[in-house]
Amino acid sequence: MGLVAVDWGTSSLRGALIGDDGRVLEEKSAPRGILTVPAGQFAAVFDSLFAAWMQPAGRLCLISGMAGSQQGWAEAPYETCPAGLADLARRLCWIESGRIAIVPGLCDERDGVPDVMRGEEVQIFGAIRLTGMTNGLFVLPGTHNKWATVREGRVTGFRTCMTGEFYSLLSQHSILARTLQADAALDEAAFRRGVACTGNGEGLLHNAFGARTLGLFRRMPPTALASYLSGVLIGEEMRAQPLQGIREVVLIGAPALTARYALALKTVGIDVRALGAEATWAGAYALHTVLNAGHSR
Amino acid sequence: MGLVAVDWGTSSLRGALIGDDGRVLEEKSAPRGILTVPAGQFAAVFDSLFAAWMQPAGRLCLISGMAGSQQGWAEAPYETCPAGLADLARRLCWIESGRIAIVPGLCDERDGVPDVMRGEEVQIFGAIRLTGMTNGLFVLPGTHNKWATVREGRVTGFRTCMTGEFYSLLSQHSILARTLQADAALDEAAFRRGVACTGNGEGLLHNAFGARTLGLFRRMPPTALASYLSGVLIGEEMRAQPLQGIREVVLIGAPALTARYALALKTVGIDVRALGAEATWAGAYALHTVLNAGHSR
Repeated sequence: MGLVAVDWGTSSLRGALIGDDGRVLEEKSAPRGILTVPAGQFAAVFDSLFAAWMQPAGRLCLISGMAGSQQGWAEAPYETCPAGLADLARRLCWIESGRIAIVPGLCDERDGVPDVMRGEEVQIFGAIRLTGMTNGLFVLPGTHNKWATVREGRVTGFRTCMTGEFYSLLSQHSILARTLQADAALDEAAFRRGVACTGNGEGLLHNAFGARTLGLFRRMPPTALASYLSGVLIGEEMRAQPLQGIREVVLIGAPALTARYALALKTVGIDVRALGAEATWAGAYALHTVLNAGHSR
Repeated sequence: MGLVAVDWGTSSLRGALIGDDGRVLEEKSAPRGILTVPAGQFAAVFDSLFAAWMQPAGRLCLISGMAGSQQGWAEAPYETCPAGLADLARRLCWIESGRIAIVPGLCDERDGVPDVMRGEEVQIFGAIRLTGMTNGLFVLPGTHNKWATVREGRVTGFRTCMTGEFYSLLSQHSILARTLQADAALDEAAFRRGVACTGNGEGLLHNAFGARTLGLFRRMPPTALASYLSGVLIGEEMRAQPLQGIREVVLIGAPALTARYALALKTVGIDVRALGAEATWAGAYALHTVLNAGHSR
């Protein structure tokens, strides 16, 4: 019967038609993130994009991401960590029984402060399937990055870091924006210098200011300052993670971004395995397999 | 002869007419920060505001702040730390010999990354004069906060923290802005909870996200979230400072802001002495005294 997998995010969506053997037969993307869809129009947008793929009777569609949020198609629950694929399968939010379901997000909590993800959970389970790593640290860089700990194939906990959003705010709207050239290519030496400086214990609120003064004193050219700032942010993020005893992490995300995390992690002696969209499709397929293996739709 | 002191900042300026005994006779402020003054117009703006005060022949005016930057009236040097009042007096940048001078800023450096202040140095020397504390930690909250260490009446080093600018960016332009009520009054309990959470070692990039999830899960009302975020930022800033063995710090700034730092510092057992604009005038007067005591104009 195959499977349709959709990662429906805030600003865009991606879909894949997946064969019974797990192979991706076709992919598409559209700038129809949930913020572009008026309330009540999700079914119509879905049909306009995926009606052809959903033609065969009995074909299942699994949707992950912000489509399951309050502002999405239907509010799917958050499954509490630790959580495995079977937990997600049990808590699917069915839009049409047996045909279209939204995958629950995950939540975690520490000291009374909740944390949440929507969509990344499917990518993590896909990465577990693709790498065979059922224990480890899985890192998903983006606007709001997730660092998830996996034990015996279950997500035992995770933390969100607003690194991508901080970078965007600082490089475009802060005093740093006056001197740094935001669209310059990655300068690896400047990036590594930014990562290294976060070892000084002075904190992000101070270290970010270096991207101003290094420019002011002409110690670094405008084309290198954005890379330095990026290094300061990613270095700061990295040092707050539970990296003790870790020798390899799994990175899932856009190649330009995972490459930066790979560079940063290498400075502290950690290797990476980097995955892209294939993790999403593998995760949806793995969930589909669990569903077929015993859970009624 | 008295003295005219001007703190000429980026977006506004303040001036005071100070008597020979150091008492402030008159004060004024104007929305004529350096960004509002076209190149070549600084003398005209100065005259329009201070001509009357400068009437008596031989009266001196000392200007501190961003008026000494590249974009200001004239570029004044940075004096390298450690620096005392006599160093500032020696390095004055005279606009009109013996009549109008710009006070140099200070610079410090660590691991090849410079740090700078312009204007705060005069406030610090004023605070030393007013409190009699010639050794200690002096904190100047604002958009770009300064934490300065003073030994035997000299500034031996300092760090800038972009806390005020981060708060403004996050509360107005980030995803947090969607749920928090930026203009709500300070909620002391939420603020203290934010400060406390920074002790978890998870870092600002993660802890700031709590201001989103606490709202999302209705654990904190929108009116408290801005205070929580403010606590997270100030707590993060505070924990990166050299507070070991410190029992009291001097705070210089606007009362609404120094009150928050006092609350945060109290949670780690540190008392404060808070000063406002009087520190600027006392600093200019102290510099004037040093000048008169032996340095030729």
